[in-house]
Amino acid sequence: MSEFSPLKYENNKLIMIDQRKLPLEEIWLSYDNVEDIADSIKTMVVRGAPAIGCAAAFGFFIGVRNFIKNKNGNLNSEIKKIVRMLGETRPTAVNLFGALRDMESVVISENRDLYLENLEKTALKIWMDDVKSCKQIGKNGIEVFPEGKLNVLTHCNAGALATGGYGTALGVIRALHENNRLNMVYADDTRPRQQGAKLTVWELTKDNIPVTLVPDTAAGLIMSKKMIDLVVTGADRIAQNGDSANKIGTYNIAIIAKRHNIPFYIAAPLTTYDPETLTGEGIPIEERDGDEVRKVGDTYTTVPSVKVFNPGFDVTPAELIKCIITEKGNIFPPYKENFKKIL
Amino acid sequence: MSEFSPLKYENNKLIMIDQRKLPLEEIWLSYDNVEDIADSIKTMVVRGAPAIGCAAAFGFFIGVRNFIKNKNGNLNSEIKKIVRMLGETRPTAVNLFGALRDMESVVISENRDLYLENLEKTALKIWMDDVKSCKQIGKNGIEVFPEGKLNVLTHCNAGALATGGYGTALGVIRALHENNRLNMVYADDTRPRQQGAKLTVWELTKDNIPVTLVPDTAAGLIMSKKMIDLVVTGADRIAQNGDSANKIGTYNIAIIAKRHNIPFYIAAPLTTYDPETLTGEGIPIEERDGDEVRKVGDTYTTVPSVKVFNPGFDVTPAELIKCIITEKGNIFPPYKENFKKIL
Repeated sequence: MSEFSPLKYENNKLIMIDQRKLPLEEIWLSYDNVEDIADSIKTMVVRGAPAIGCAAAFGFFIGVRNFIKNKNGNLNSEIKKIVRMLGETRPTAVNLFGALRDMESVVISENRDLYLENLEKTALKIWMDDVKSCKQIGKNGIEVFPEGKLNVLTHCNAGALATGGYGTALGVIRALHENNRLNMVYADDTRPRQQGAKLTVWELTKDNIPVTLVPDTAAGLIMSKKMIDLVVTGADRIAQNGDSANKIGTYNIAIIAKRHNIPFYIAAPLTTYDPETLTGEGIPIEERDGDEVRKVGDTYTTVPSVKVFNPGFDVTPAELIKCIITEKGNIFPPYKENFKKIL
Repeated sequence: MSEFSPLKYENNKLIMIDQRKLPLEEIWLSYDNVEDIADSIKTMVVRGAPAIGCAAAFGFFIGVRNFIKNKNGNLNSEIKKIVRMLGETRPTAVNLFGALRDMESVVISENRDLYLENLEKTALKIWMDDVKSCKQIGKNGIEVFPEGKLNVLTHCNAGALATGGYGTALGVIRALHENNRLNMVYADDTRPRQQGAKLTVWELTKDNIPVTLVPDTAAGLIMSKKMIDLVVTGADRIAQNGDSANKIGTYNIAIIAKRHNIPFYIAAPLTTYDPETLTGEGIPIEERDGDEVRKVGDTYTTVPSVKVFNPGFDVTPAELIKCIITEKGNIFPPYKENFKKIL
């Protein structure tokens, strides 16, 4: 399971586990056109910034391949259309745009088969590089953590499911576990979509990593009772100054951790760093459908007509982040300067 | 609806709205014995510290009445049994124990009918006093709040449903609304049992008070965007020094409010103040069934075997509370001294 990936590439098709159905059903869906891949990102069959990047890379490749094989017309304008279609799916995660840029930068050779081969290789490389990065993040993370057997709180799912494989925050947790340094993972529910309860618990249980599920509302109590030693989460976009967007509720936890002097870490590949966004204020925050809050599953749990505010992400300011764990090392404040050194 | 109470007393029976079924079904359940009333408190047909106090008072009366009418035996030992039975239902809310003490202090006259009449009067008085207190809390609250039309965040349900009627935190909100001082109530979901989504939204919608539902995870974002002017919640027990136990997640919000310089208020009747508990450390915190977190409705949303930590309450330290709004006035720090003056 630690070799688990939410994506497969088989018989020229992208195959992805339907993360909306976990943990009760394990269903793999097969994709052979870019429209459906864009839809799978938008509807969260696949989610997690690095995994979205991988899916978008394959979406680009499959879209171009179908165009070249089946249609006539202007390839450049088709590529623009594909990039726009994939780019409009989720606005916050920057890895999506990075992956599309990498795919676009593949030279369009006169030999279309060679071009397609290079696109396919690039998509596979984006995916494999992400897995490699996650494993290196795991190694780096354990070097920066406090001593001893640790109790760790994480939010949402920054696991194998959210990446090409292995995970970022859960990558660090896997590395702790492999080194016999993990006592317990506290996974919070992560309302409204419950990625903690649904995905993180499923992933860790499969790997026999000890996990306790807690409601998001229990973060303060858990920290005041000294039940955890540190917090680690992933990120969807890290601004130049270190401000980090991640799943809604991350900022809550970072504030609460600060009050209790509990270190708060971000674990993310460098593809999540966006030096062109200067601070968190510049990160677009996706607002999602109110029914995610009004309903659980197919059932309303509130007055169906009630107004809802449902932001998908929040921004944790750099000053609350003890360190950002990347595949190229552990970055400490001041983030702008220290990211510049590493890049 | 502002005269709404979750309890009725008709034909010698206690009748309560089943709060587990709201907002989708409005079902009233009828009780004529103490065992079932104790069970209704334990299983949260009725919840909210002041409402639990009212229900327990009627439970005491009905239990004693049934004993006197139908059984022979030692009345004093029966009363002890009834007090123990009701006292063991929910450990955190102090109003429960206060109501039982008031009922126990009714003098047992030789004339049993007179005694029962006095018990009935006392139960009704506990209930009516609570409604009166709530209305006075409403009046007091608006005097202490910032100027202008306000946006207010509340947690859980401290409404008519949680009290004899009118509500504590929602009492203050009702008073704001009646005085044209309310812009919007942000009600948070309040996982795991979703009393915000289920009860607060229902209650406010019925009274045409503007309400927006938000996930608990959005508190930080909402405050950082200056969408709210203040937070007000109820309490289940206030210790001598002002530390206040309330629904799990209240402490999270108080910490986050502090960071954003947003005032955090508690609204509670003096029956919630417990001078015998010196600080929050002495308040027992109920740990509830893990299935409240694992399931939504009847459906598991996580791996059914996962370990869960599900505390029902947390304690907000006095230093995070700007003011405690009571029926006898607005109490500011230092709470110990200022509560002493008022009592």
